[in-house]
Amino acid sequence: MAVNLSDIAAMAGRPIAAVVGLVVPRSGNPTLIHELNAGLHEVAERFQVPIVGGDTNSWEGGLVVSVTVLGESEKPILRSGAQPGDALFVTGTLGGSILGRHLDPQPRISEALQLRSLVPLHALIDISDGLSQDLGHILSESGCGAILDAEAIPLHPDATTLSQTSGKSPLEHALGDGEDFELILVVSPEDAERLTAQPVPGITLSRIGTCVREPGMWLQESGKLVPLMPRGWNHPLS
Amino acid sequence: MAVNLSDIAAMAGRPIAAVVGLVVPRSGNPTLIHELNAGLHEVAERFQVPIVGGDTNSWEGGLVVSVTVLGESEKPILRSGAQPGDALFVTGTLGGSILGRHLDPQPRISEALQLRSLVPLHALIDISDGLSQDLGHILSESGCGAILDAEAIPLHPDATTLSQTSGKSPLEHALGDGEDFELILVVSPEDAERLTAQPVPGITLSRIGTCVREPGMWLQESGKLVPLMPRGWNHPLS
Repeated sequence: MAVNLSDIAAMAGRPIAAVVGLVVPRSGNPTLIHELNAGLHEVAERFQVPIVGGDTNSWEGGLVVSVTVLGESEKPILRSGAQPGDALFVTGTLGGSILGRHLDPQPRISEALQLRSLVPLHALIDISDGLSQDLGHILSESGCGAILDAEAIPLHPDATTLSQTSGKSPLEHALGDGEDFELILVVSPEDAERLTAQPVPGITLSRIGTCVREPGMWLQESGKLVPLMPRGWNHPLS
Repeated sequence: MAVNLSDIAAMAGRPIAAVVGLVVPRSGNPTLIHELNAGLHEVAERFQVPIVGGDTNSWEGGLVVSVTVLGESEKPILRSGAQPGDALFVTGTLGGSILGRHLDPQPRISEALQLRSLVPLHALIDISDGLSQDLGHILSESGCGAILDAEAIPLHPDATTLSQTSGKSPLEHALGDGEDFELILVVSPEDAERLTAQPVPGITLSRIGTCVREPGMWLQESGKLVPLMPRGWNHPLS
């Protein structure tokens, strides 16, 4: 439910209803089913998305849950509108979601709606597969590239914690880990100044880089420019 | 898909979109999946209902298909509007769907919309569980009863065929068999006259009985009035 809501946030849409398909194992644990149901309704209520239908059944097989969220938007924000010179922002902090946050995603519905009401968003996506990979979707659909500022990428404390045992740096986690469900937004340089000059109450925004004409992704770190692969910056092209 | 469309027809609604949740066994027959997909799209196209989303996945378990159809209606026709004196009609012919028709339901979407444009419908339902049982839903929600005319109930040839081996009469099949997916409609006596006087092109309509004040269901057969249980008239109350 939350992941689907994040997909709506990724287009700055407004969720209107959800349908839930549920197949329950006959020999299943009733507590699990009750908790699942309570969890679905808790998220539905928090985001004021009525569960309007779907189907419920039981069988000898395993548990199946299928959630679809329907949303509306007068003008959805797509991935394809980024232009060279545009500024890149992310909401929140990134990395290490596997330590637990991936089980309780916080879809950025109201954040996306609030941001689009403040400035025109050229492109928008939620981070489900990782910052570098999801930014890659924006860049390939917009036909441009980007340079990211390593020091500007906001690290979640979990990225630091995980780095102590993972063999990766916190930055690698912030760039490569999935299921952060934060937003990447692309705005004009002028609107970037406005967003930076006047912080938006309740929304943590970090300006992490700039779109460039040449396709590709680079990380600017300690004055050097390192090519970045969509799947993680530790496997550079050169 | 067709069964869900019939649920939309049962309220004289207009289908607008479908969502499909699909979990496919990894070891499954690819032909089955292609045929399933083709079947879903064939019905979607026939009723001009775009499949707008849902989810597709694969696993080690069995095949799971969950279809939800979203519809709209300025004023849905409910089950609760039948009044004593109202006339009961059904579309099509009934009984014996298990001989094959149950695998290819014909949702009466356009029939319901056409009928509601001709006369005010007091109540409406589709026949999924059998004429007597689904009529029972209308009667209990409307707080009235009904007398059915045994000779007026339209028998499908399958009801006759099945009766040769089932030990039941064709009428029993027409009253008790499910999955006909025809419509039961309730209109005022005046509108019943109009519907009877001028046949509606393309729609087979039979006037099968009358609503009465006293709760219950009766079958008028050879001049006798036999109580009818919602689950089939062969198990009368007395």
